Amino acid sequence: MKNNLFENIPSNLPEELFEILQGSGGVKIERIVSRGHATPEGEWYDQSWDEWVVLLKGLAILDFDGDKESVSLKSGDFIFLPAGLRHRVAWTEPDVDSIWLAIHFNF
Amino acid sequence: MKNNLFENIPSNLPEELFEILQGSGGVKIERIVSRGHATPEGEWYDQSWDEWVVLLKGLAILDFDGDKESVSLKSGDFIFLPAGLRHRVAWTEPDVDSIWLAIHFNF
Repeated sequence: MKNNLFENIPSNLPEELFEILQGSGGVKIERIVSRGHATPEGEWYDQSWDEWVVLLKGLAILDFDGDKESVSLKSGDFIFLPAGLRHRVAWTEPDVDSIWLAIHFNF
Repeated sequence: MKNNLFENIPSNLPEELFEILQGSGGVKIERIVSRGHATPEGEWYDQSWDEWVVLLKGLAILDFDGDKESVSLKSGDFIFLPAGLRHRVAWTEPDVDSIWLAIHFNF
């Protein structure tokens, strides 16, 4: 019945891990595990829905399209990414599991 | 623009702290800080919407109405509480900040 955000992480993680933990009622709750991964250069997340995301472990840097300054995130930092805000993960801490919890809504 | 789940906790916490971090688009994202607090004896949360909740720090025990067994939670444990599942916080670790993140949806 319960499950743990910090467990069940594969020892081998060639790509970022995306898992939908809950997906009904117009909301998607997603765990993301990055181990030094970043969004491929030149690619942006360009979403038609809102996202609220918290970094629970590790370190990361988010970049935004245009003039908006990058944001560095540490454990516990959360940020609201409104629909249409083009963003990418520029960097995550190498050799460490950076664990995100993303809430997608307003589809 | 960013904020931190583990910061800005009052040193004095006579009652549980409930804060809506995001509340639009049919979803409410809430931080709860319990410092040994519990739901008053005999009281139940009886919600007409779904809740997904994760305990990020501390320790807690959730009780359920009826025959359903209690669930003990540690850091990272998450659980889905469907609408109508009567539940209460039976216990949280004393003298420690137990930090919850609750996603309320399906209103």
